[in-house]
Amino acid sequence: MNSQEYDTLDKLLRRIHNLGSVSGLLGWDELVNLPADSADQRAEQSAAMAQVCHAASTDPELGQALNALEANIDSLNEEKRIVVREARKDFDRSAKLPVEYVQRKARLDSAAYHAWAHAKQNSDFSEFAPFLQKQVDAAKEFATYLGWEDRAYDCLIDLHDPGMDAATIDGLFSELKEELVPIVGHIVNASTKPDTSIFRNFPIEEQRAFLNEITAALGFNYKRGRIDESLHPFCGGNGADIRMTTRFDKDNPLDSLFSAIHETGHGMYEQGLPLDQLHNALGQAAGMGAHESQSRLWENQVCRSRAFWNRYESDFRTRFPQQLDGISSDALYLAINSVSKNPIRVDSDEVTYNLHIIIRFEIEKRIFDGSLPIDGVPDAWNSLYDELLDIQPRNDAEGALQDVHWSSGSFGYFPSYCLGNMLAAQLWYTALEQLEGLERDIEKGEFSRLLSWLREAVHSKGKRYPLNALAIEAIGSALSPKALIAYLKERYLPLYTQP
Amino acid sequence: MNSQEYDTLDKLLRRIHNLGSVSGLLGWDELVNLPADSADQRAEQSAAMAQVCHAASTDPELGQALNALEANIDSLNEEKRIVVREARKDFDRSAKLPVEYVQRKARLDSAAYHAWAHAKQNSDFSEFAPFLQKQVDAAKEFATYLGWEDRAYDCLIDLHDPGMDAATIDGLFSELKEELVPIVGHIVNASTKPDTSIFRNFPIEEQRAFLNEITAALGFNYKRGRIDESLHPFCGGNGADIRMTTRFDKDNPLDSLFSAIHETGHGMYEQGLPLDQLHNALGQAAGMGAHESQSRLWENQVCRSRAFWNRYESDFRTRFPQQLDGISSDALYLAINSVSKNPIRVDSDEVTYNLHIIIRFEIEKRIFDGSLPIDGVPDAWNSLYDELLDIQPRNDAEGALQDVHWSSGSFGYFPSYCLGNMLAAQLWYTALEQLEGLERDIEKGEFSRLLSWLREAVHSKGKRYPLNALAIEAIGSALSPKALIAYLKERYLPLYTQP
Repeated sequence: MNSQEYDTLDKLLRRIHNLGSVSGLLGWDELVNLPADSADQRAEQSAAMAQVCHAASTDPELGQALNALEANIDSLNEEKRIVVREARKDFDRSAKLPVEYVQRKARLDSAAYHAWAHAKQNSDFSEFAPFLQKQVDAAKEFATYLGWEDRAYDCLIDLHDPGMDAATIDGLFSELKEELVPIVGHIVNASTKPDTSIFRNFPIEEQRAFLNEITAALGFNYKRGRIDESLHPFCGGNGADIRMTTRFDKDNPLDSLFSAIHETGHGMYEQGLPLDQLHNALGQAAGMGAHESQSRLWENQVCRSRAFWNRYESDFRTRFPQQLDGISSDALYLAINSVSKNPIRVDSDEVTYNLHIIIRFEIEKRIFDGSLPIDGVPDAWNSLYDELLDIQPRNDAEGALQDVHWSSGSFGYFPSYCLGNMLAAQLWYTALEQLEGLERDIEKGEFSRLLSWLREAVHSKGKRYPLNALAIEAIGSALSPKALIAYLKERYLPLYTQP
Repeated sequence: MNSQEYDTLDKLLRRIHNLGSVSGLLGWDELVNLPADSADQRAEQSAAMAQVCHAASTDPELGQALNALEANIDSLNEEKRIVVREARKDFDRSAKLPVEYVQRKARLDSAAYHAWAHAKQNSDFSEFAPFLQKQVDAAKEFATYLGWEDRAYDCLIDLHDPGMDAATIDGLFSELKEELVPIVGHIVNASTKPDTSIFRNFPIEEQRAFLNEITAALGFNYKRGRIDESLHPFCGGNGADIRMTTRFDKDNPLDSLFSAIHETGHGMYEQGLPLDQLHNALGQAAGMGAHESQSRLWENQVCRSRAFWNRYESDFRTRFPQQLDGISSDALYLAINSVSKNPIRVDSDEVTYNLHIIIRFEIEKRIFDGSLPIDGVPDAWNSLYDELLDIQPRNDAEGALQDVHWSSGSFGYFPSYCLGNMLAAQLWYTALEQLEGLERDIEKGEFSRLLSWLREAVHSKGKRYPLNALAIEAIGSALSPKALIAYLKERYLPLYTQP
């Protein structure tokens, strides 16, 4: 009997997946193709699809199938139990929310986004504050519906990284922070000064050809995906049809390249999930942190390395001979690994980036534990930037208003970026240990052994494990900042000589 | 009370429109963007959307609203009555079909398409014949469900061109045929021989830039649409977001150009429909013939004219200076208006094209009146080609298997192409009469008066009128081949000198 109910579950999950992937494609098309004046119709289309997807996700038949399967859960094999467990989580996340709440939240998201954009333009946090307060309240209400009671922030973290919580992250970030602040101090005080002004007038067509060459060499399957352009790079779709984007600036060839490599890391994770299970937990990514570990590992550990540039510097110079004329290999490599103090997270390098995240986590934590009122956010922000990065934001636009995330109530999202950096470094050192000659592979432009290893260690696991358990499966130990610290020291300290 | 029911109707029509337009975008993306191996997922997505769209189109609430509105139809103003009338037609077309029939037809379409493709490859009509028979039977069954009894072919024609029927078309085509055969004879026996071999090595980027210039000049609003590439050019979307395509061949710059102009004609029609009514009959095109009248008018009457090339020849030569070096204006103009006997409809010119259509209509008519058994189609085809075009197809692939339409049971579709050509010529002569100096406009690259006139005469009318009534509204007389004959004689007889 359970077999028939499992088939029903499978059928309904496929339907949710198919309709959801159509919604995803609408979103991709909006950012890549939409004509300038066609946003009105796209809003109507997206709303109609949201309604259809919500109806599919809360289909009472799905609830009945889950009830029946759970009543007799021991009759299912382990894989099916995982599918049921995650389908239950997803079902509850949709079905436990009152329709009134869902509609109110959609209106709030829209109003808060516009308020944030306006406040940022005016660089006036107080304009945004009442909307931020409403988003915090809505997030707490959400957590209550899902049964998390007063652990709202943990509920939100769990949305992005199953099994993680604020206390665990706090421990990890404290350890990281302590080591990272002196590393940044070392770098900014160094006599070595990277010169990024060498990147001028790099023709777009050559940038495009170079990043196509690199991303294909890394192992992205272009028969199951493509790369286009958008204002902000992203990776959409799923392993059956990945839609990545990058962006081009003739004076910043590293931006298009490393954006493309970053999204390729995301894309190859999706392409490594089992293709026949994309509609259930076995074929879905483990979470945001795990996803970010893949994009970061390829972007940073692999493609900013000396080994990688030993292989590709000549190809790069062939495409941009005049632009790089007279620039030494060392100067080029240093510019690729430039570190500097920047108040803006998205413009920052892989070293300081983690401190930007730690600051956001600290503020979210204090908001949700009640120790920081909303109108205290800018002061808290500025004093944390001063303390950890010796940066004094000139205004709210450069400070607490810089990121879009809070306007949609996406709390608990920022930590994933840094958790991903930690896991990336841990995976990297484990791969180096287990794959003899890995750096020689990279020096030859050979990435297949590393990709296969990641497929086995991470991709093939789907959503079986919470983040920490996934780390233990993949590398034999839980998440820790130690590998990230070691990696940053190893890569950056020798590069930046002291005066 | 009716006002509330009309609001319900309006809401449900918007929903059908939004979901349908998402399905349309999926189809566009499939032909323009889909990665090589991602068709499997697209098939699943399209099937899920088809189910959602069908459910919306047959929503019992919609049937109830229509019943209530029809019971009290006199209380509605004329526009609302039109909306109700067409919504009823659409509702019945979905709701009167048994689910079993819809599913069987979908399977038949898929099987018949593959059988056709295979039969065409083997050039063996007998492989396709049983599937064609099943499609004819399914079409008759469809007509019966919709209450057309034994007038199945008229039912199918009415699907594409509301109000048209086989007897009317037969009369129009007979008159056209009689005049057209001698015109083709005049041209093919002429001593003038266009040389299309002058089109060699026209760089794609310059072709693209030229057609962008032309289509924008004609009046296509690129803020509500775009043009991309696909294997076969088409125009999808609606006035809120038009998605046109063309295709490029460095040895055939006229193909990319005139395909783009043709699709621009379709696109400008859609853009001329009232934007706030796209979800109902007031904002939808009158039918296939009316649509084709727009694409053909811009493609042929306007953009193959001497006036047009007087304006744009120099721009064309600026983009392709070496390629056109030594080619006279007359030789270029003749090549642009090349007429030749070609067994393939899609490769034929605007003169012979009409005879290709007349042949298909004749065969469909005979199939549906029972006078032509399916296995007699190839012989009937070949003898009609011999009689009307002095063409002897070498095999079935070049003959009765060349078009895809019948594999999906799209009978009654072909006539629209020729009805569109007739209406285009009628509109053209009326515009010439009513807009003094129109050809001088075109000679200056000024198309706005013509476009405004078409907006008023055709676009703004939506689906208010059946095709013949639309013609009467627009030009004061019913559809007739006379203008098309006059236009072809005027354009082509002087160009092709007798020996």
